[in-house]
This record gives sequence, C-alpha cells and structure tokens, in this order.
Amino acid sequence: MTSVAFIERLPAGGHDLGIETDRDMMARHLADATRKPGPVPSLVARPKTTEGVSAFLKACHDAGQPVAVQGGLTGLSGGARPLEGEVVLSLERMRSLGPVDAVSATIVVEAGARLQTVQEAAESAGLCFGVDIGARGSATIGGMIATNAGGIRVLRHDMMRAQILGLEAVLADGTVLSSLRGLMKDNSGPNLNQLFIGGEGLFGVVTRACLRLSAKPAAERNALCAVPSVDSALVLLQRLRSALGPQLTAFEGIFAPVYEGISAMRRGAIPLPAGSPLYVIAEMQIFGAQAGDDVFETVLIQAYEDGLCSDIVVSRSGREFAAIWDVREGCTEFTFSLGRLTGHDISVPLRSIPAFMAEAETLLAGLDPEAGAYVFGHLGDGNLHYVVRTGRREAVSPEIYRLAARLGGSVTAEHGVGLDKKDYLSLVRSPAELATIRMLKAALDPKAILNRGRVL
Amino acid sequence: MTSVAFIERLPAGGHDLGIETDRDMMARHLADATRKPGPVPSLVARPKTTEGVSAFLKACHDAGQPVAVQGGLTGLSGGARPLEGEVVLSLERMRSLGPVDAVSATIVVEAGARLQTVQEAAESAGLCFGVDIGARGSATIGGMIATNAGGIRVLRHDMMRAQILGLEAVLADGTVLSSLRGLMKDNSGPNLNQLFIGGEGLFGVVTRACLRLSAKPAAERNALCAVPSVDSALVLLQRLRSALGPQLTAFEGIFAPVYEGISAMRRGAIPLPAGSPLYVIAEMQIFGAQAGDDVFETVLIQAYEDGLCSDIVVSRSGREFAAIWDVREGCTEFTFSLGRLTGHDISVPLRSIPAFMAEAETLLAGLDPEAGAYVFGHLGDGNLHYVVRTGRREAVSPEIYRLAARLGGSVTAEHGVGLDKKDYLSLVRSPAELATIRMLKAALDPKAILNRGRVL
Ligand SMILES: Cc1cc2nc3c(=O)[nH]c(=O)nc-3n(C[C@H](O)[C@H](O)[C@H](O)COP(=O)(O)OP(=O)(O)OC[C@H]3O[C@@H](n4cnc5c(N)ncnc54)[C@H](O)[C@@H]3O)c2cc1C
Ligand SMILES: Cc1cc2nc3c(=O)[nH]c(=O)nc-3n(C[C@H](O)[C@H](O)[C@H](O)COP(=O)(O)OP(=O)(O)OC[C@H]3O[C@@H](n4cnc5c(N)ncnc54)[C@H](O)[C@@H]3O)c2cc1C
Repeated sequence: MTSVAFIERLPAGGHDLGIETDRDMMARHLADATRKPGPVPSLVARPKTTEGVSAFLKACHDAGQPVAVQGGLTGLSGGARPLEGEVVLSLERMRSLGPVDAVSATIVVEAGARLQTVQEAAESAGLCFGVDIGARGSATIGGMIATNAGGIRVLRHDMMRAQILGLEAVLADGTVLSSLRGLMKDNSGPNLNQLFIGGEGLFGVVTRACLRLSAKPAAERNALCAVPSVDSALVLLQRLRSALGPQLTAFEGIFAPVYEGISAMRRGAIPLPAGSPLYVIAEMQIFGAQAGDDVFETVLIQAYEDGLCSDIVVSRSGREFAAIWDVREGCTEFTFSLGRLTGHDISVPLRSIPAFMAEAETLLAGLDPEAGAYVFGHLGDGNLHYVVRTGRREAVSPEIYRLAARLGGSVTAEHGVGLDKKDYLSLVRSPAELATIRMLKAALDPKAILNRGRVL
Repeated sequence: MTSVAFIERLPAGGHDLGIETDRDMMARHLADATRKPGPVPSLVARPKTTEGVSAFLKACHDAGQPVAVQGGLTGLSGGARPLEGEVVLSLERMRSLGPVDAVSATIVVEAGARLQTVQEAAESAGLCFGVDIGARGSATIGGMIATNAGGIRVLRHDMMRAQILGLEAVLADGTVLSSLRGLMKDNSGPNLNQLFIGGEGLFGVVTRACLRLSAKPAAERNALCAVPSVDSALVLLQRLRSALGPQLTAFEGIFAPVYEGISAMRRGAIPLPAGSPLYVIAEMQIFGAQAGDDVFETVLIQAYEDGLCSDIVVSRSGREFAAIWDVREGCTEFTFSLGRLTGHDISVPLRSIPAFMAEAETLLAGLDPEAGAYVFGHLGDGNLHYVVRTGRREAVSPEIYRLAARLGGSVTAEHGVGLDKKDYLSLVRSPAELATIRMLKAALDPKAILNRGRVL
C-alpha cells in the first residue's frame, strides 16, 4: 500500500497525531545510537495522547501497516531503526510528568519523558529515581521500560523492571491496557505490565508508567581501587556486599587497556596511576548522620592489608567523588575514540568472570592476533562491555557470544536484542522458549505490525 | 472419562509419579489454609522430577484432564482447592536445594522446597532470603512464586517477583521452559519467567527457581510505637524512610481492637499498654558496626517530641526484639480465635489509607451495627488485613472491596485471586485486561487444563 492511501485512512478528528512526512524532518528518525540508518519511512507519527497512539495503531492494524516504535533513539541494538515499508511511531511529544506523590513515593509519567527530567522531579521532592544511565539526557522512560534498562546502580535498585509500579500500554489493535494504580502490593491476577517491560515493543507500546521513587541518601562516597586480578575483585565485592548490604550501590570494573587509555586521554590527571591489571569503582550511599561511613573505609583498608587491592583512593569531598566517577564516564569516551570497534554487552555468573576473561583472551589471540580487547562494565552485576578492536568482527563476535553462553551467561545483558543481536539469541534461549515468545506475539499482535522482525 | 482409564494411560516407565489414589491418603489434598475442602480428586500425582511433571501434564493435556496444582497448601484464596473432576498435581516431593553460590549470592531450589529450609540454607552461608511469611514452615517456593507472596519485609526486599533470577516451568502440554542461569542482568528477549510469577498456576507449573539471596544484617532493631492516628503513622513512615532508606525493613500496623485483643490474650504482658488507636512496629537492619543505629532513635525521639507517637519502646536486646515481633504474630492468633471472621486482604495507595479506614467504618456501621473490624497488616506497603466479624459477610465483603477499588486500591494485595476472590476481580481489572489474560491463557493452555476456573 502507498503511504498516501494510508495517511488518508488515518483518523482525522480529535487526535493530534503530529504526522510528519517531510524527508528532512524525518532524517532524525532513521537510526538509534548504533548510528546505522534504516530507510526513510513513509511517515512519522508523533501523537500527543494515549488515545492518539491507540487511534494510530488501530489504523495501522486495520491496514496491516508495520510500525517501528521509537523513544529517545539511544538504544544500542538497533531496535528502533526503521525497516523498509515501516512507518514510525515516536513517543517524543508525550513527555509530561505528573506530580510526585511524596507519601507513596511514586510519580506517573508519559512514556516520552526523558530520564533526566524524571530524576530532577524526584530530586526536587527529596527523593531519587533508582536507574541511571549515561544516556539520561535523551533516553525516554518508555524506551528504558521496553529495554529493561540497567545501568550503574543495579546492585542497589535492580533494573528498570523493579521501578515499575504501574503501566499503561496500547496493544497492536489499539486496545488500551491501563494499570496505573501504583500499588506496592497488588496480586489481583497476573501482572500484564511485565510483558511490556523488556518486551522491546513486540507486544505493545508503552504510553505511561507509574514509577517507584526511593529515599535520597544523606551522602554518597566512592572509592577507586587498583586490583591485581578479577579473583581479588570478586572477594572485595563479597566483603563490601556483606558489610554494606543495600548501602553498596555500585561496583564497576575497568580493565588495564581502557584505564591506560583514559589516563593518556586525561594526561595522567586521574585519581590513581595506570599500571594495575584492573580498577574497581565502588560506591556507597549513607542514610542518616555518618552511618556506615567508617565501615566502608574499614573494609577497604582490610582489603589493602590482605593484598586484594594494591592502591585505593576514597573520596572525601564532592569534588573527589565526581573525579572518581569521571574515570568511569571516560570509558565510553575513550572506546568511542578508537574506531573499528565491536561491543559485546555480555553477562556471566559472577564466579565465571575470571574464566570468561581468560578464555576470551585466548580465543581472540587465535582469531585475530592484531585484535585488542577493551573491557569495562558493571562488574558487580556480572555484566561486561567486552569491546573489541578488530578487522575480523564477523569471526570474533560469534565466538565471544558463544563463550558467554557456554559459561551460563547472556548475549545481551542490558541492551536488548533489537535487530543487531537476533542471530545470537538461540545461543541462550531454547527452541521451546523461542516458540513461546512467538506464540505470545501471535496472540497479542496477530498481524505482527509492531517492531516486526526485531528480537525474533 | 474415568480416572482408571486415565491412570492406565499415564506414562509408565522411567518417571516416579508418586500416584496416590487412596481416599484417606488424599484427604490432606482437599483444602488450603482457607479450610474449605473441595471434593476428593480421582488421583494425586506427586512426581519427583521436572520430567515427571512434564510427562504427567502431557498425559493430562492429551486426555483433556483438568489439574489442580498444589504446593504447601497455605494459600488463602482457595487456588489449590480441587474442583469436581480434577486430578491433583502436588510438588511436595520436589523439595531439594542446590548449593548456595556465595559469589553470585544465589541458590537453585525445587518448587516444593519449603520457605524455611531455603531461609536456613541462606543463613548457613552467611546470607539471607528476602521474603518471610508466617507460613514459612509449610509454604513452598513454587506456591510463593505462583502467588507472588509478600510478607513483612517488602519495604526492603520487595515481593517474591524481585527474588526470582531464574525459573523452570512446565506448560500445560508438557513443554519445559528452563531459564535457570540466574543472571542479575539478562535482556536476551522477553522474560517469560514473569508469566509464572503471580500467575497462580494458570500458565504453567513452576518446577525450579534460581533465587536471589541478600547480605545478612550485622544487627536488627525494632520499635513498637503507640500512634494517635493513621495520618501520624504516615508522617512517621516518611521520616523513617528518608532517614534510613533501604535500612528500613518493616513498618507494620495494628489497630486498637486487635492490639487490645492481643493484650488480653497475653494478660497484659506486652511491651506497651493498650489504649492508643494504632500501634506501629518499625524494623531496621544494620550493616557494619553501629551504623545507622542512633539515626533510628533520633528519628523516633523527634517523632515523640512532635506528637507523632505517644509512647515508644525500642528493642535493646534480642529478647526485646523478639517480644516486639511477638505482638505482630499475635495478630493472626487473636483474630483466628474470634470465629465468624471474614478477611479482606486489600491495599490502597498510602495516602488513601486514612480515607479507607474512615469510610469503611461508616460503611460497616450502616450494613451491620453488630459488626467489629479487626485491622492489622503491612501498613508501610498500603496493605491492610481488614478482618470483619459479622453475620452479614455477603453484604459486607463486596462493599469493602468496592471501597478499596474506588480509592484506587486492590481487592487482593498479596493472597491472589484463586477461587474465592474471583467475583471481585472486575472491580480492579478492566474488560480489556481480563480479555488479555484470557487470550494468554488460551495461547499457553489451549485446553484450559491448568487450574481451570481460578482467577477468571
Ligand atoms: C551513552 C549511552 C549509555 C548507555 N548506558 C546504558 C546503561 O548503562 N544501561 C543500559 O541498560 N542501557 C544503556 N544504554 C542503552 C539503553 O538501552 C538506552 O539508552 C535506553 O534504554 C533506550 O531508551 P530510548 O528511549 O532511547 O529508546 P529507543 O532507542 O528509542 O528504543 C529502544 C527500543 O525500545 C523500543 N521502544 C522505545 N520506546 C518504546 C515505547 N514507548 N513502547 C514500546 N517500545 C518502545 C524501540 O522500538 C526499541 O526497540 C546506553 C546508551 C547510550 C547511548
Ligand atoms: C499463617 C499464614 C501466613 C501467611 N502470611 C502471608 C504473608 O505475609 N504474605 C503473603 O503474601 N502470603 C501469606 N500467606 C499466604 C501465602 O499466599 C501462602 O502462604 C504461599 O504463598 C502459598 O504457598 P503454598 O506453597 O502453600 O501454595 P498453595 O497454597 O499450595 O497454592 C497457592 C496457589 O499457587 C498455585 N501453585 C502452588 N504451587 C505451584 C507451582 N509449583 N506452580 C504453579 N502454581 C502453583 C496453586 O495452584 C494455588 O493457586 C500466609 C498464609 C498463612 C497460612
């Protein structure tokens, strides 16, 4: 069908669908953060309301018109990239925030709301939002729900799923499912919201969410530790976890090649000199006066005495705190500067990280002696960004994923499957699981108009 | 079909199905904790393995034989009670526990494992399991997953859903879905486990789970506070939440009639005298030396100064700690001793609790002037057990549920729908949601053999 005919069939009155058909205007809807553009769609719809999303989807459903769903386009697996013949549904004009409910510690927001605006709303009510990712300025709550985003504070707050106390979503045929009561406890039948969290837009379009907010810490501290090995890092993690419990909020790892790169990029102006095989950033949150503060140092000093760390800096001011996190932010900056990069967002059970690192090194040396591995990530969650610089990505990537799968891990820890990780899904999901996902897709979107060809 | 014919068709070799057909032996399979027995089933199967569950279900599926799934039979909504014509599938012989993985802080257990054995295994590895309920000695992990059990530490650990890092489940046709990798982060396609958590056995039978374990606190303290009103309690909650963050683990409420009953039952030997309209039990966990300890007292003393509490006891020893929790345990003991009771496990948004209490009182006075309301529960989660002593339960219950729904709450906060709450589900779920649940049921269990007639 032609787009003109389709546009003529769109519901006219009442709904501001924000239809865009100008090629130049549509240019910013061709790619997510993977920067691989898809073809220009025949139109981009940017409804202002849930009813608008519903009316638009109903028209698409009736016409069998496939739709690519877009949030902030910061995704890293190509899920929002349009395919040939698709129209785009963007949530970008649905970004309003309801008031913070300070008693329940919740807020209802539209799916197009940016993470950073939600964080700011929470902060100004003396609360905080649990998920934080580098793309906070552009990533939308809807996209983060659809990809079950993780980030650096998963140890404390878990993934996006754990923040969702209510959801509104529109099915492919325009049916609106609304469950925004925002109760901490509600077992009145199966929880349908879960389908849309991490569902990558396969089953419906998220239009609104009721988010859980948390207490804002009285203070935060972090430490940068030079660590001789992954094994030592895992012992340090166990000690911090058992001493600090839920007050341990982050445990990030940066391996030597990345740390050295950041050090060079910053001309050595970083809190610890390069030279150690691994660096760890640990963060703790403090509630109430001084509480827990000395525990942090006690554990770290003991770790030093026991040889688990060869050097440590603990932040004593906001400036030092920021300087330590700045090293972590340098990871993306440095690796993006290298070029010819292939990222692998893998996770393995914590105890298998040493085996993963060792076997991946051997594997890489065999496949491409020129290759370099630049590894960093959310070490405490078993989640590594295993970035490889190689001219032989076609040979390397499948083997890295196969290794993660063989060690009981995942081929996509936080970025989702989208278009770009589809080939590897069967390494970690059984035929029975894939058939079940297909069955759900067929039940909820019988004409397969939503994000067709993604994931499966 | 006759049960004999069905038994003859059951797969013989290989699987120890533990088939029981003796009426006396089957007598303990007729009722859950609601104590309303169903009819004697034609047989009870108690397989030892996932393959056994699969073979049994496949046989039932082929024969169109409806099945009632049973765990520890501690459920409070009749979900496990057999119906006419059903066979029973009990997980009671699948109760083995894998080793604790101390690095990942996880454990894989069979669905029939009792909560208490899991708690003990975690403790002996220096960790703890986050969900605790009074029925810990009998409730099974599978039943707790199927009902997404809550309990007293939801403020800190959330519900059962948040503890599940992996699941194995068998669909109605015998298909085994196994996802037991136990990763903190795994976005490799939609998370099918979520269907079975809080799914009340509609979509499949849980056979194994990988559970998240948490750090064991260095110390715990609690306080019993006499509080003049629900409004004061909510202010106290906000203060404790913001001062203690994730270290606040419980905030339970006991209203005067229940507190007075417990006081009488214990002949006054409880930590605070009766006389206040409401009592609150707050608990905090301490990680590392002393940390946060004085914050607890500081907040409570300030609350006293501000008139938010009229009296406070803070535990200073294990004995005092236990004495305070013993008051909470007295709630069930006392209300069960009353007879003619109708429980309502409702939740409302926290800010609506005062309105709920006031309107429910008016409503009750109108419907049955003889009625007494005995209210206690997980106040900090907005979850009240609104227990009514009345001869007019048919008139009272629908009105209590309607009120909860009207205030944006739920008709079943933690106990699920089962057979006994079905009539009220449409108060809180829209026709579109109910149709979607039916659609999922039809896709995953086309002959509707699993827990037929429950929930929907
Ligand atoms: C610098 C940077 C840092 C990052 N750091 C992290 C990190 O630490 N942790 C992490 O988990 N991720 C991280 N990400 C990737 C992360 O997945 C995305 O940032 C975010 O979750 C996607 O949100 P978005 O609004 O940009 O979605 P998009 O990119 O627009 O879309 C992502 C997917 O969700 C679907 N989708 C979008 N909106 C909706 C909706 N309303 N309903 C249904 N489906 C929808 C799309 O179709 C697509 O499949 C990072 C990305 C960048 C660029
Ligand atoms: C004294 C007492 C205190 C309680 N306190 C709380 C509390 O604080 N919080 C709370 O949430 N609940 C509480 N409960 C109720 C709670 O729902 C149950 O204790 C528990 O979750 C059910 O587990 P079970 O193994 O006994 O399941 P059962 O009662 O046997 O079954 C419950 C439901 O789950 C289904 N089911 C059971 N096993 C499986 C399986 N393996 N796969 C699929 N479906 C299955 C059944 O068909 C049924 O629908 C309490 C109960 C009692 C008696």
